[in-house]
This record gives sequence, structure tokens and C-alpha cells, in this order.
Amino acid sequence: MSAKYSVILSNVGSCSDRYLTTGYEKPYSISELFERVSKIPQVGGVELIGTWHVTDNNVKEIKRHLDEYGLKLVSIIPDHFGQMKWKYGSFASKDGAIRDLAVAHTKEMIDAAVELGGNLISLWPGQDGYDYLFQADYIQERDWFAEGIKEVCTYRPDVKISLEYKVKEPRTHSYLSTVATSLLIAQEIGTDNIGVTIDFGHSLNAYETPAESVALLKKYGNKLFHVHMNDNYRHWDDDMIVGSVHTIETLEFFYWLKRTGYDGWLSIDQYPYREDGLEAVREGVNAMEDFVNLVDSISTGEIESLIRKGNSPEITAYLRKLLLSARS
Amino acid sequence: MSAKYSVILSNVGSCSDRYLTTGYEKPYSISELFERVSKIPQVGGVELIGTWHVTDNNVKEIKRHLDEYGLKLVSIIPDHFGQMKWKYGSFASKDGAIRDLAVAHTKEMIDAAVELGGNLISLWPGQDGYDYLFQADYIQERDWFAEGIKEVCTYRPDVKISLEYKVKEPRTHSYLSTVATSLLIAQEIGTDNIGVTIDFGHSLNAYETPAESVALLKKYGNKLFHVHMNDNYRHWDDDMIVGSVHTIETLEFFYWLKRTGYDGWLSIDQYPYREDGLEAVREGVNAMEDFVNLVDSISTGEIESLIRKGNSPEITAYLRKLLLSARS
Amino acid sequence: MSAKYSVILSNVGSCSDRYLTTGYEKPYSISELFERVSKIPQVGGVELIGTWHVTDNNVKEIKRHLDEYGLKLVSIIPDHFGQMKWKYGSFASKDGAIRDLAVAHTKEMIDAAVELGGNLISLWPGQDGYDYLFQADYIQERDWFAEGIKEVCTYRPDVKISLEYKVKEPRTHSYLSTVATSLLIAQEIGTDNIGVTIDFGHSLNAYETPAESVALLKKYGNKLFHVHMNDNYRHWDDDMIVGSVHTIETLEFFYWLKRTGYDGWLSIDQYPYREDGLEAVREGVNAMEDFVNLVDSISTGEIESLIRKGNSPEITAYLRKLLLSARS
Amino acid sequence: MSAKYSVILSNVGSCSDRYLTTGYEKPYSISELFERVSKIPQVGGVELIGTWHVTDNNVKEIKRHLDEYGLKLVSIIPDHFGQMKWKYGSFASKDGAIRDLAVAHTKEMIDAAVELGGNLISLWPGQDGYDYLFQADYIQERDWFAEGIKEVCTYRPDVKISLEYKVKEPRTHSYLSTVATSLLIAQEIGTDNIGVTIDFGHSLNAYETPAESVALLKKYGNKLFHVHMNDNYRHWDDDMIVGSVHTIETLEFFYWLKRTGYDGWLSIDQYPYREDGLEAVREGVNAMEDFVNLVDSISTGEIESLIRKGNSPEITAYLRKLLLSARS
Repeated sequence: MSAKYSVILSNVGSCSDRYLTTGYEKPYSISELFERVSKIPQVGGVELIGTWHVTDNNVKEIKRHLDEYGLKLVSIIPDHFGQMKWKYGSFASKDGAIRDLAVAHTKEMIDAAVELGGNLISLWPGQDGYDYLFQADYIQERDWFAEGIKEVCTYRPDVKISLEYKVKEPRTHSYLSTVATSLLIAQEIGTDNIGVTIDFGHSLNAYETPAESVALLKKYGNKLFHVHMNDNYRHWDDDMIVGSVHTIETLEFFYWLKRTGYDGWLSIDQYPYREDGLEAVREGVNAMEDFVNLVDSISTGEIESLIRKGNSPEITAYLRKLLLSARS
Repeated sequence: MSAKYSVILSNVGSCSDRYLTTGYEKPYSISELFERVSKIPQVGGVELIGTWHVTDNNVKEIKRHLDEYGLKLVSIIPDHFGQMKWKYGSFASKDGAIRDLAVAHTKEMIDAAVELGGNLISLWPGQDGYDYLFQADYIQERDWFAEGIKEVCTYRPDVKISLEYKVKEPRTHSYLSTVATSLLIAQEIGTDNIGVTIDFGHSLNAYETPAESVALLKKYGNKLFHVHMNDNYRHWDDDMIVGSVHTIETLEFFYWLKRTGYDGWLSIDQYPYREDGLEAVREGVNAMEDFVNLVDSISTGEIESLIRKGNSPEITAYLRKLLLSARS
Repeated sequence: MSAKYSVILSNVGSCSDRYLTTGYEKPYSISELFERVSKIPQVGGVELIGTWHVTDNNVKEIKRHLDEYGLKLVSIIPDHFGQMKWKYGSFASKDGAIRDLAVAHTKEMIDAAVELGGNLISLWPGQDGYDYLFQADYIQERDWFAEGIKEVCTYRPDVKISLEYKVKEPRTHSYLSTVATSLLIAQEIGTDNIGVTIDFGHSLNAYETPAESVALLKKYGNKLFHVHMNDNYRHWDDDMIVGSVHTIETLEFFYWLKRTGYDGWLSIDQYPYREDGLEAVREGVNAMEDFVNLVDSISTGEIESLIRKGNSPEITAYLRKLLLSARS
Repeated sequence: MSAKYSVILSNVGSCSDRYLTTGYEKPYSISELFERVSKIPQVGGVELIGTWHVTDNNVKEIKRHLDEYGLKLVSIIPDHFGQMKWKYGSFASKDGAIRDLAVAHTKEMIDAAVELGGNLISLWPGQDGYDYLFQADYIQERDWFAEGIKEVCTYRPDVKISLEYKVKEPRTHSYLSTVATSLLIAQEIGTDNIGVTIDFGHSLNAYETPAESVALLKKYGNKLFHVHMNDNYRHWDDDMIVGSVHTIETLEFFYWLKRTGYDGWLSIDQYPYREDGLEAVREGVNAMEDFVNLVDSISTGEIESLIRKGNSPEITAYLRKLLLSARS
């Protein structure tokens, strides 16, 4: 499979959590972040976050950085999660003025993306959802959500809008929770330019098998638009280095990307709280590359035959020999 | 809200698990099970399971039992899970002959239901899914699944086919996993007589908020056809007595049933491994009745205003006063 | 049961998460936080966090605040989690210099607590643990952990050191993970002044039944020293308002506090990301008070008889009548 | 590391679950089960289950089978879970007569083990726990539990009693829930012959890192007496083939077995619901052997250096190269 590797810009920087809000390491400037990304040879593109990296005013400056390092703009992730105003939601906020702001900011980021040579918006409306029982009008708020998404989808049909689902965090329950919920919304919107981002870890969190989520998106309209890679221990979005926990799930995921003809970017989305961000991303990219190579090295005929039979001792034996054969 | 209470017939009997396959109590005959159900005054109907309760040959006998106790047939749950032949799936089996049997058995049960005065099939294809990674062709098998379901939906348009989703067990991963997956399939089939059964506990297992699942089914085509009630500790389908763990989720669920105008049956689906089945069901029904009464006693205006504002300390205070005010 | 209510000072303020590091609301000064606490009439004491609230230099200022509002110092929680230096652990850090700092800071906080009229340190070594597989020498690091704790326990035998366990976050795996792990460590240390803090939500996260954790601490040396109250959806430390999700678990927890003669503080430990902190704490305290009153209002003889028999339909019926009887 | 492989006899047979109580395959006789085990060349011993395999009356027959195939008796697992009488518990039952039966059956199995040349009882008191809130006197029942265990430990000090913990199933909550709970009980009993069985999957279910559980048992008295191997998706005891999901956790587990000098048996404990039991066990044993070989092939110095530094990108890179280097 041909593979294009990218990274969310902030991933090579420092991270905060709720206990250490000023960060586990000193912060990096945007130009430092770009420079750090440039040190990973396989990386050909970056994803930028609204407000954090891209604003109305700095598009030219960002363009210079991209040009300087020969990086493509893979996507912009509009900021629907990192400001006080979104605390009760963005597209699904109970406050109509906030909903308007969510749409307006997205349109700005669409324009910025086009100006920067991109054609993909990875939308993560993380504040849209609820925390408490009896707190939400699930029908009304989901209707508002779909209306807003529809408006940004029709704004520029040549720009893809890719919905990144996540079952929870920062809200205890998200509206855009699973791959199937995302497909329901995509069908509701009905435009060609709406699709879905699979974040590998989010898929695990929802007790999905990530490879099966790839298949679902293929089956229901070829809607896999983008991929975010990381790993975790299933129960929470730990955002760890690719392949550090789920060897076989990751392998099957890459196998199905190839099987379904995915030709988009493979983008790192890790949160290296305590690691050096650059080293963590470098290793994540190396891992993606090795998974891609491993997928390419194995016999499709053999794997397809295993899948067709479905005999688990044979499948397990095959994977064991692939992964465990002691090195000489 | 007007409420109709029912029970799955085997619920008043004895239960097995994988360690005690002969059951935690002596088994009951079908006529004993009917007699036991008849002792719970609020119960007006029963659900029967294919093979276990209904076969091609005993429809008349079943009819006699229903008549004797004045019970309605609420649904038949065809047996797609309790025989060796389904071990690798029913509608989604890799074996075409098995897929045919799955359809044929369902049609038989549709006929039996009509003969018994029913118009609802609650379909739980629990063996359709997979256990191991690299074991399934997720696209092909889901296509087969949809084809089979479509065939039974078109067999008799006057009989409702209601899909009961569950994220896992007996397979480690089910195809019909969540409310949103069920809706995708329902839209794929596209007939009027396809809908969804919410099993309260299954909804919790999938990290759904059950009330939100009611809302989703309302929003996407008014597709809530049936309800199974029980409770659990979220991580597994413990099938405990209604209301024994999740007081507020259960209350919110009944509130949304009323709010969305649900007028189907409220059916007990518990597995009283160690309890006397009759006593456990009696208490489950009493609990449903008290939740219904509580929902009817509270001011809709007040609740709607809380939902509209979404202020959680106010919501929590309201629920606290409703539930905790010490009795004199 | 006699009950003493307190709160962690920062709970009435504003909260951050990893996406909104500057907070969901404007920050409050320490004196504003004290003033806000004083508006909740039932609250008689506060818990303070090292660095955030108490430093070597501001003990007198803190004393003034306590005196002004007639609040007791319930505990100090030393800061072993909120500074860059702890990023790889405090008591169990691989770096001996950091381990020494963890001990030294704790001793300073012990001295500060005594000066402020307190006798309890609630220790939450949240950074002690690991994130990745093959990252930790579990034996060596646990030995270091125990050594450090022992040193602070022997520093001032008249000050209680209470270990607050939590299964994960901020690390993916904590050393002080469960009530039983905490007891193992307490037995290893062996001093009279070591005990355990149950955080209700942390207990749920570890699939403990919080009431059973109270019982375990009673059985193994009467080691329940302190209680932090909140609620969540079991899978993560959502730090929600007391009683907002788990009505029956919370009731059983308070029942066992009374049954085992707990006479310490009941302290709010919520994270009101989007709520007004004061209103959320006020409601949390009201909830604790109502649970205490409900426990006091019910017949101990009746409950004890239910526990002795263990018949779940009877138990569930009892709780249903207690909680659901529609108000007139 | 020197490794001894064994299997629980029933693992090569057929399995039931609660939906298919008569089994997913035809049942095998005891002599057939022995014959099937004998076909796996690396297996040198078997574990037998009370009632299911060993009774008072068939010890001589069992001896003949062991001799015929040159198999050692690795352990007996007394039956405290598979009969109606244990439905409310065995050692911790509220009924004193049942508690006596639990002790008496264990003593019989101890005698049988000795007669069969064994010196290990793997005790899995799966019914000791509770399902519902307010159902148990956690202190009293844990006291009874410890009393019973103590009695069987003192019966024959030359026979090891190894406690197999599991967080739930068949009860929603087990008393013997985690490695730390087991250690608390072992310390409470205080005899030399009490220890702990780690079931790899049970450890995952409790959000333990299995390698860390090995370390905990080493640290607190060298108490790892026995190992049961399988795999699962973390949330439930799926009892899948060894290594089929958690490659790295399994590798780290074997590494720590070697590091701590474990010299007991490595025993398969799988539930091949749909697989041929013999093929599933054969593959499980092959997997254990490959993990052992891989552990022996890697440089201890390198791994220890990685653990000492704890730098996760380096650790992940090491494991990636070990596992993913595409085969030529």
C-alpha cells in the first residue's frame, strides 16, 4: 500500500493535563514545532488546530512554515473544544449564538485550509454532548448538530468535512460517539463531501474493532476520509505511541486500510505527556511504516483464506509465526 | 403514560451458566412457566423463544396456555443462539446453508406468531459476529446479515421485525452491536416493519444512555418497537432485577418513553440465576410500575425546563428531592 | 450518624482539562475561594492542596482565612502531581533526588498542617506508576514507594497519613491502585498513623463496591481515615456531583460508614468543569446530608435482616419503596 | 527459562454457555479427554476439576489414565462452583452447613491429589461474593471465607493451596477479586503453603498489568504458586487462545516470570466455545513455547536497561523491532 504520513502539529510539543495545566515540559513556539516536525523524514504533511495554530491573522505565516519545510497541509481541525465559549457545546449548544459561532469558525478554517492548499477539515466537536442525566434534549440538540454540520458541508463542496468520533471526553457522553453514529449523521447530511475520521484509539474506546470500523465505512458509502493513529488500554483515550499496546489490532487495521483501498493520510495523534514529543512522534511514524511494510510483506491470498475459513487456531498460529519467531 | 407489562416466559424459570449447565434450580415445564407468570397480576403478555418454547408442533398447545391465563403473545424471539448449528452465526454465517436455515426458522416463527395472535418478532441474532481478530470478512458478512433480515422483513409486512442489539456475548463482538448500528441496518433494509428493541442493560453495556437511545430511535424514523427491562453494573449483561442498580438512568429512560409517545410493551428480560424466577420477575414488574407512576407524578413542565436549561446542580437537586426525601 | 462536612478548597473554583488548560471559567484567588466556601452553611472544614493553596510562606495567611470563616483544616494534600518535576513519579521516581523531594515536601506539609491545627495528610501520589509496558521495575519502584511513605509516617506519629488510591490517571497505571493495594502498603509500613482515604469515585473506577471497601478497611485494622465524595459513570474519574448517578451505591456506602462507626470528615472532591463550583459543591453537600438523613431514618434492624438473608427480590423491593414511592 | 506445560483437562473438550447449555460440540468422556491431551507433545501434566473429573470413587481410574499417558497431576481444582448447593457461595456462604461442605470437599480433593502424586490445589471459589447491593455482610462473610481457607491450609501443610482470583463471574462481585485482595488473605492465613494462582485473563479483567501482578506476588512473600494462561479483550473473561490479543502484555508477563524465577507449571485455561478444543489448546501451548523462546532469545541486559531508564519511545522501538521486522 502507498502510505502518506503526517502529524498533528502540537504532537511534537508539550502536553498538559488537568493536574498540570502549564504542561509537563516547556512550551514550544509554532515555528519550533514546524522545525521539529521537519526532523522526521517520512512525514510529508501536518494537521493544524484552529486558534492553537491557525487564526484569521496568521495564514501567511503558516504558509511560510509549510513552504520552508516542504510540508503539505493535511487538514485543519477547527477549535470547537479549547475555549471557554464552547463549554456547553458548539454545533449542539443550547445557545443559538454559540451554534452560529461554531459554524462561522468552521467556515473560516475552511477558507484558511483552501488558502493553505488543503482540502480537508477534520472536525472534532468534542464539547457536543452532555455530562449529566436529564441534562439534554437529545433530539433537539442532535437536530441542531446536524443543521450546523450541513451548513459547513454545503459551504464549499470541494472541501471534505471529516467527522472524528469519540465516545467521551471532554464530556462524559459525546453526540458523535461511534463509527455508526457518525454514519447516521453522514447519511442525514447526505452530501458527498461528508465523511469520517477514524481515530484508532477512539475506536478501541468504543469497543469497536478498528479494522471493522474501516469496513463499516467502506460498506456504507466509502466514507473513510482520514485516519488518526495512537494506542491505549481500551478504557480511555491514553493517546500513546502507535503499536505500543495493540499489536494485532493495529496490524489488522492496516490490513483493512489496504484491503479497502484507503488512500488518505496516516496521521499521528498522540499526547506524549511525559515523553519528548519529537521522539514519540518519530517512533509512532516508524511504527506505522513497519506495520505498512509488514502488511505488504504478507501474502494476501493466505490472509484472505484465513478470513474466509475463520478457524481461530489457524489464524492465531499464523499471527504467532509472523510476530514471535525468535530472531537469530 | 399507559403501560403494558410482559415477560419472557423463561424468566420465571431456572437459569444456567457456563459453570453450572444444568441450572441453579430444578427446571420448570412450559405449563408450569405459564402458571407462574399468571401469578403476577400486572402482566398481560408473554414473549416466547423459538425451540425453547415454540416449535412447529406445539403452537396449539401454546395457544391453550395463552387462552387459559388470558395472556397475549407479545413477541416470539426466534432461536438463533441456542443450538449447535448457530455456533458460527445465523444470518451472517459463512455457511450459506446455515444462513438459509436462519431465514427459514424466522419465517416459521413469524407464522407461529400470527397464528398466536401476535405481530412482533424480537430478533436477537446473538451468534452473528466474531471472536478473534482476522476471523471475519466484516463487509461480506454484514451484507449477508442484511440480506437475510431483508428477506424476513418482506415475508409478511404486517409483522414487525424488531432487532435487539447487544455489544457482545455470546460472541466477543456482535454485528448488531449498538442502537446506531441497528439504525444503519434498519435504513439499509428500508421497510416499514423493521425496528429496534432496546434492552436496557444492553444499552448500558454499550456506554449508551438508555434515554438517549430512545431519542435516537425517535429521531431516525420512530423505530423503537420493543423494550426489554433489567439492570446491570454497566460492564456486562448481568440481567438483574429492574432498578436494582441504576435508579436515575431507569427513571430518565421511562421519562423519555413517555416523552416520545412509546406505546409498546415493557417486558422483563432478567436472568435470575440464584433468585426464585417468579419473585424476581414480580419485583421487576413492581419496579417498572413504580417508575411509570413516578414519571406520571412529576411535573413535565418542571422537567422540561430543567432539560432546557441543562444546569446540573439544579437537575441533581431536583432528583435528590424526588428520591431521597426521608420518609416519615 | 454524626457527620462533619468539608470540601477541597479548589472545588469551589474553576477547572481545566487537557483541551482547555486555562480553565472553563475565570480563576478565583485563594481568599475568594475561602469566601465561597463560607457560603455553604453545613461545611465546617477545608482541605488544602500543597503548592496550589499552601506553601512554606503563606501559612499565616491561610490561618487568617480559616479563622475568619471559622473553618477547620481537615487535611493538607501535598502536591505530588502538579509540577513538572513529578512527571515520572514522586515517592517511586527512578530518580533518588526526586524521591527525596517528595518526602521533604510531605514533611513541610505535615508541619504546615500541625501549625494550622490539623492532624491529617491526605496523600495522593498520582504520578507514581507507569504508562507503558516494560517501563517499570515494579518491585524496585514499589520498594522505594514504601520507603518514602514510611519515612513520612515516622516523621510525626501524631499526624495521620491517609493514602488515597486511584487505579489510573494521570498515569495509565498507578501503584496505589485499589483499596487492597493500599492495605498491603499500610501493613508493610506498619505504623498506627497510616490509613486510607476512600474516594467514592475512585472506588467505582476500580470495580469496587464502595461499601465493601469501607468494610475491608474496617476488617483489616480499622484503616478508613478519610472520605472523598463525588460520582461518575464507573469507567473514569468524572468527579461529578454526589449522588448524581449512583443512588443505591451511595446509600449503601453511607450505611456502611455508619455501621462501621466512621467518625471522620465527609469531604467533597468534585471537578465542576462546566458548573459553577460553589453551586456544585452546595448541591454535593446537600446530597451528603440527605443520604445521612436517609440512613438515619431507616430501620437498622430491617436492613440488617435483609443483609443476613441476602434475598435480592426482597432487598430490591425494600430499596424501591424507600426511593420511588411517588410523592403526593 | 525452563518451562513445564500443562492443561486443565476439560479444555480439550466441548464448552457450554448460558444460551447453549448442552454444549457447542458433542461431549467427550474422561478417557477421551486424556487421549486428546496426549496428542500435544509439550504437555507434561494436567489439572483436574473436582466432581467433573475427580470424585471420591474414581481416583484409581484417574491414576490409570495419568500413568497410561505419562502425565503428571499438576493440580486439582475442587468444585466450588458447579453444583446447585454452591449457588450462594461455598467458603463464604451464609449457611454454615454449606461452608462445612466446602471445607470437606477441599480436604477430599487434597487427599486425592496426594494419592495421585500431586501437591497443589488450585482453589477457585467463584461463587463466593455477591450480586446485589445490600446483599452481603462483607466483613462477616470475608471472615468466614478466611476461616475456611485456613482450615484447608492447615489440613496438610505439604500440599500447596493456591488461590485463583477473579474480579467477577459467576457472581457480579467476587470476594477473591484481585492479586492484592489475594495477598491480603494469604497474609491473614499466614501459613507457608498458601499462595496465589495468576490467571492471565483474570488479571487483565481487573485492570492489572499481568507482569506487575507477578512482581507483587514476588515482593510480598514469593507467593506465585501457579499460572493459568489465556487471553481476552480486557473487559470479560473471554478465555481465548494464548497470545491472540495481547502480544506485548504476554511477552512482558513471561519476561517477569523468568525475572522472578518462577519454576511452576504454565497451564492452559481456555474455553474454546466454537473451536475444536484440542486444536485450540495445541495452539495455546505452541504460543506459550514461542513466548518462552522469545524471552530466552532477547538480551536481559538490554531489557533491564530499558526498564531502568523507562524511556517509552526507546522501549516501543525495541519491541517494534522485535515483533514487526518483516520476514524475508
